[in-house]
Amino acid sequence: MLSSPNPLKPRLTQARAELTRQIDVVNEFGQPSHVHIPAERALTVYLDKRELVTLMTLGASPEHLVLGFLLNQRLIQSVGEIESITVDWTLGEGEMGQPGVAAIKTRAGQSQAGSKTAARVVTTGCGQGSVFGDLVNDIDAIQLAPTARIDQATLYALVNAIRLQETTYKSSGSVHGCALFKGAEMLMFVEDVGRHNAVDTIAGWMAMNDVSGHDKVFYTTGRLTSEMVIKSAQMGVPIAVSRSGITQMGLEVAQRVGLCAIGRATHKRFLCFSAAHRLIWQAELAEHATRPIAHD
Amino acid sequence: MLSSPNPLKPRLTQARAELTRQIDVVNEFGQPSHVHIPAERALTVYLDKRELVTLMTLGASPEHLVLGFLLNQRLIQSVGEIESITVDWTLGEGEMGQPGVAAIKTRAGQSQAGSKTAARVVTTGCGQGSVFGDLVNDIDAIQLAPTARIDQATLYALVNAIRLQETTYKSSGSVHGCALFKGAEMLMFVEDVGRHNAVDTIAGWMAMNDVSGHDKVFYTTGRLTSEMVIKSAQMGVPIAVSRSGITQMGLEVAQRVGLCAIGRATHKRFLCFSAAHRLIWQAELAEHATRPIAHD
Repeated sequence: MLSSPNPLKPRLTQARAELTRQIDVVNEFGQPSHVHIPAERALTVYLDKRELVTLMTLGASPEHLVLGFLLNQRLIQSVGEIESITVDWTLGEGEMGQPGVAAIKTRAGQSQAGSKTAARVVTTGCGQGSVFGDLVNDIDAIQLAPTARIDQATLYALVNAIRLQETTYKSSGSVHGCALFKGAEMLMFVEDVGRHNAVDTIAGWMAMNDVSGHDKVFYTTGRLTSEMVIKSAQMGVPIAVSRSGITQMGLEVAQRVGLCAIGRATHKRFLCFSAAHRLIWQAELAEHATRPIAHD
Repeated sequence: MLSSPNPLKPRLTQARAELTRQIDVVNEFGQPSHVHIPAERALTVYLDKRELVTLMTLGASPEHLVLGFLLNQRLIQSVGEIESITVDWTLGEGEMGQPGVAAIKTRAGQSQAGSKTAARVVTTGCGQGSVFGDLVNDIDAIQLAPTARIDQATLYALVNAIRLQETTYKSSGSVHGCALFKGAEMLMFVEDVGRHNAVDTIAGWMAMNDVSGHDKVFYTTGRLTSEMVIKSAQMGVPIAVSRSGITQMGLEVAQRVGLCAIGRATHKRFLCFSAAHRLIWQAELAEHATRPIAHD
């Protein structure tokens, strides 16, 4: 879905790095063994040479991550404000105290984007230092496409596509995955050590590719917290699906913006938490499903 | 374990609130149903009347949470700096835009604690806006008790105690649990919607009760990320156990400070990731264990 193509796209590097690493462990028999763990890198972000934040990331797509972070933190209003994002891991590889560097150059220079920094960056996080305060004020301005719906067959196809996806999670565990779907077609899949990074990476990818959210479905392996629901809504995506559950604030935000939140989605089972009018039930497809209480 | 008792303890309220809430859902057959979800509340923290941060929390122990947050963010150096912490949920109950309030009064007044605020609060979070930068500088100052060890029988007893614990997770899912053990004795157990909140609550509880970490074991249901390992080390707890895995930075921090990180701990299985000299193997206890690759 291309909409309002923007000729002013930033130049992005394509910094790449290994996503898993083999380590030595000792098992319960006292025997040495090996397992793979996900990589985790510190990436210090500089906005027009001013240090902004350090993100801990798997490193799968650092440029899109940084772009999405700027957008979701509302440090920039559009991708056109950025001239380039240059990521260099070489400083940081293997040395804990030496993060990689993401240098962002804005078209306007530091005067414009820098002025918002101090007030905004305070409020990032996962349950702490939440973006909640600022974002709640803006929720009511969000208009999700009123007619966007998903049918049960498509939901099942989407859950199955996630199941088949080759992932760092399968080889190493300990990462969160997010995906963007149009119908049952997976447009993008990304994993990160933090799920906020994963959804920000999707936001950055959407902005770079002029992808509108109004006819898309957002999938996350993690819980539907308020921040995940808000970010989905900010991206204009009216339907969010999770393997896990929902938190109270996540539910309240979803109800308030009319976002269809679907959780506990595994195999043929799911629960619709909000905006049920967006879901077209085909209950005959569910007939062999069982309904135990699932936890995440 | 009492050490250096401090007569200057803050006065804490004991604000309590429901930890779960029943909600209406629609299942995959299109049938209305009910499930319980964990509560999630916004708690805006004021330090000497200055707004500091908004935490999203389950609300199980908000005063200890706030105290531990201040300590772990190094906004205060000791519990003696705080005169009182007053939590009032009544403003926030049920209304998304109206957080509860935690009012902290320092003994010194705003001049002392307030001055550190701006620089420190920027760096909170879960993979984003990390405390990493500041904390890495301080890691090398941490001295964990060199002789602290755990034997395999105690580790198994600890994992079993967690299994038997009645939890919000069991009834509602979607929360992280943390616990503090002395040997196989569970001294404290707390759950929250964010695992950083859970570990901060433990830190606050330890500070209020003059509990030293040097002979304790920290347990978390979540991954051993760098921030969880750093917080365990900051509390002086030399052994950290998780049901989940470890991330690369978590491992590097654990190795650097000599913290024994034990992951994938379920039933009789576990992997020791670091400081294996702290673990006393009793392999005969593991004989019926199997060793599939576990994911979290």
